[in-house]
Amino acid sequence: MKHRDLLGMEDLERADIERILETANHMREVGERDVKKVPTLRGRTVVNLFFEASTRTRASFEIAGKRLSADVVNFSPSSSSLKKSESILDTARTLDAMDPDCVIVRHSVAGVPKCIADVLSAPVINAGDGAHEHPTQALLDMLTVQQEKGRIDGLTVTIVGDIAHSRVARSNIYGFRRMGAEVRVAAPPTMIPADVETLGVKAYTSLREALEGADVVMALRIQNERLVGSWFPSVREYSATFGLDRARLRFAKDDAIVMHPGPVNRGVELSHELTDDRSSVILDQVRNGVAIRMAVLYLFAGRQRGRAAAEETRP
Amino acid sequence: MKHRDLLGMEDLERADIERILETANHMREVGERDVKKVPTLRGRTVVNLFFEASTRTRASFEIAGKRLSADVVNFSPSSSSLKKSESILDTARTLDAMDPDCVIVRHSVAGVPKCIADVLSAPVINAGDGAHEHPTQALLDMLTVQQEKGRIDGLTVTIVGDIAHSRVARSNIYGFRRMGAEVRVAAPPTMIPADVETLGVKAYTSLREALEGADVVMALRIQNERLVGSWFPSVREYSATFGLDRARLRFAKDDAIVMHPGPVNRGVELSHELTDDRSSVILDQVRNGVAIRMAVLYLFAGRQRGRAAAEETRP
Amino acid sequence: MKHRDLLGMEDLERADIERILETANHMREVGERDVKKVPTLRGRTVVNLFFEASTRTRASFEIAGKRLSADVVNFSPSSSSLKKSESILDTARTLDAMDPDCVIVRHSVAGVPKCIADVLSAPVINAGDGAHEHPTQALLDMLTVQQEKGRIDGLTVTIVGDIAHSRVARSNIYGFRRMGAEVRVAAPPTMIPADVETLGVKAYTSLREALEGADVVMALRIQNERLVGSWFPSVREYSATFGLDRARLRFAKDDAIVMHPGPVNRGVELSHELTDDRSSVILDQVRNGVAIRMAVLYLFAGRQRGRAAAEETRP
Repeated sequence: MKHRDLLGMEDLERADIERILETANHMREVGERDVKKVPTLRGRTVVNLFFEASTRTRASFEIAGKRLSADVVNFSPSSSSLKKSESILDTARTLDAMDPDCVIVRHSVAGVPKCIADVLSAPVINAGDGAHEHPTQALLDMLTVQQEKGRIDGLTVTIVGDIAHSRVARSNIYGFRRMGAEVRVAAPPTMIPADVETLGVKAYTSLREALEGADVVMALRIQNERLVGSWFPSVREYSATFGLDRARLRFAKDDAIVMHPGPVNRGVELSHELTDDRSSVILDQVRNGVAIRMAVLYLFAGRQRGRAAAEETRP
Repeated sequence: MKHRDLLGMEDLERADIERILETANHMREVGERDVKKVPTLRGRTVVNLFFEASTRTRASFEIAGKRLSADVVNFSPSSSSLKKSESILDTARTLDAMDPDCVIVRHSVAGVPKCIADVLSAPVINAGDGAHEHPTQALLDMLTVQQEKGRIDGLTVTIVGDIAHSRVARSNIYGFRRMGAEVRVAAPPTMIPADVETLGVKAYTSLREALEGADVVMALRIQNERLVGSWFPSVREYSATFGLDRARLRFAKDDAIVMHPGPVNRGVELSHELTDDRSSVILDQVRNGVAIRMAVLYLFAGRQRGRAAAEETRP
Repeated sequence: MKHRDLLGMEDLERADIERILETANHMREVGERDVKKVPTLRGRTVVNLFFEASTRTRASFEIAGKRLSADVVNFSPSSSSLKKSESILDTARTLDAMDPDCVIVRHSVAGVPKCIADVLSAPVINAGDGAHEHPTQALLDMLTVQQEKGRIDGLTVTIVGDIAHSRVARSNIYGFRRMGAEVRVAAPPTMIPADVETLGVKAYTSLREALEGADVVMALRIQNERLVGSWFPSVREYSATFGLDRARLRFAKDDAIVMHPGPVNRGVELSHELTDDRSSVILDQVRNGVAIRMAVLYLFAGRQRGRAAAEETRP
């Protein structure tokens, strides 16, 4: 890879993305075996440095690391050292001194993975930073689309939901644009960032128009607790206007697929029926998440430090 | 095994139980080696999905999985995703999409493991659900009795404590009955379920009578915090009437053994002295717990998906 | 090793310390490889029994265990079983019955690891007990000094901070004295134990005098929350009198090194500048921490139980 770290989709060239997707296609096959393990990262240490709680993403990275035979160590500083007012960078430097081969960082503040990457010798993977980026989510979404549609170039992808506060939306906009897709966003006006069209997407406040001709419909999670009363009047109103169900999905192409980063608020972003529909590829996204993270760990954590060990570290 | 999942002792035939106990006897030997590891489940993913906190049982399954060379991932949804109001079934489906070979479920509500098993492709092991069942506890208890007494058939087993609210009691009643033991329960009337005799056991409100001729005396844990004031007046009164000590144990057979699922409230269910007595097999139960969980993981998580990998997945 | 357990530096002979440091020098080399893994403890179970939260020390032991191929199980009883009023010793006995090869214990009360060691068959490593001892911290400090200075014998080591409440100070005093160094302590009078000079150290209330001729300056962490108002008037005053910066470091030898067990309260014990200075070896201490813990696990957890497995358990 051109970059040492994976901080965001914004930094990736099309060739980088293609290489990650191609590697993930091989990795997916490992998950289908009885012995779901390859020796690729044997003797490598992967650290999950999660300042923000996340059972799903943490488990996905942990399973990915273990299937590559890496030693995976979970480190959630919130619970102890940060109470001692240790700075985030000192925490990261401490970890780095334990010689990990890769540090996966999640934090509620945008930019923290970049700040950490600047002081570490180990490569950093961003597992979500505030409303900034969540690159492995976008990559697993692209892998799922490629798998379902055979391509990404030329497709129309409609993202529905709180675009302004979504790192998933941001990373997907960069990624799908770079791969040649048309990207549309649909949301109430308060949830669309003012400058979103500078990213090369078209913004809609009509769900129907946004869905017309779409190959892929991606609903974002509504953060109930955070948003009500500030950006929109009620969950009920959001759902009435932007919630997706089978009837509304008919505005999109006949073979459109429905995606969601999970967990779904059933009855809010997606109707109960649509969540479990044949058109829904939500569980494929989860499965592809493990494959993408295996690919990313292989490409970013698997580099040789010296020449001598070259044979041992090749898959 | 006949069933894909291990949800309760109620479902197991005598032949199933015998097979698990026999396998556990082999597994116990692994724990006595210096190198306590066999390659049986190499490349298999075992997930501990614990909605209810449990350090001991979780550690027992984790150690069992690791000694079989499985990758073990702990997943405690309480701390993050369930706060986001994700449904239990969606959590389970998400995990399932990461292709685990086995999901171990503990939940404070009876029936949850069954509901989860209904939607998963991975086998489910019940690690305790409400007051319903805790099958691996009953199996480790039976293994301990078999080891101490050389048999189960024909023995008299007396269970003392809050039968009505105990999954340990329920699973043991099913298991020991199926294996041909006589099972008695002893408790204050409020702690005995009305229909308990339909399970083939005899209920006593006199501890002395219940102990007469018993080969095995199993005390259950009193949930201090939960019960006082509702089902019985005080811990002191319970202990005075149903607490076991050396003097009372003399009502049972001379070579009777004392069991407890742990942790013991010393001085409540068992006197301090009796807890550490020669007759007590409490720590053997813990040791056998690892062996039973190895056996269960081997039998339920070790199945081949395809033929090709057959050799690698045999122990 | 002469002792089965590693409870404190007080118990170690000079030959024991030299053996641990020498072994750690070999282990450090493992951390510099691409494949940071040796099969030494394959099939051994190492349990982190941490009653007191500690992300850094726990991670250091976990990484050390995994690099030796041990199965590492984290067990933090605070979160579940101790709520059930299970006694510490019963928790430890339960764990012991799962046949671990080593139990690493941290507790906020001095003496707990010793009490646990008295009832376990597995060796116990003390990972910090109250204000008593933290032997692996002292060992990693000695390894760092040996690496920087080529020796320990004959050096002058000045420890600055709350000596009275510091297990790090205590363990280092025992260790460095045993290895032939001169040890000085410097602190406000309320932070110096009355009988400290019986340990063979010289106590100073003048930082300048304590630093004169020092080869090694070790600052201790100030527990802000705990101390203010009781032993000294304010953090600001402590820092003004005993905080180290580049100017004050000039009282020590020109090539003096600066150590700190971490995490540093920047601007309190050490100035921001000095924390990141060339003279600071704080991150080397962290790196050496993994090497020391690998050495300690190798020496204490790697013993054979029987003869048959001898070949497999040798590194």
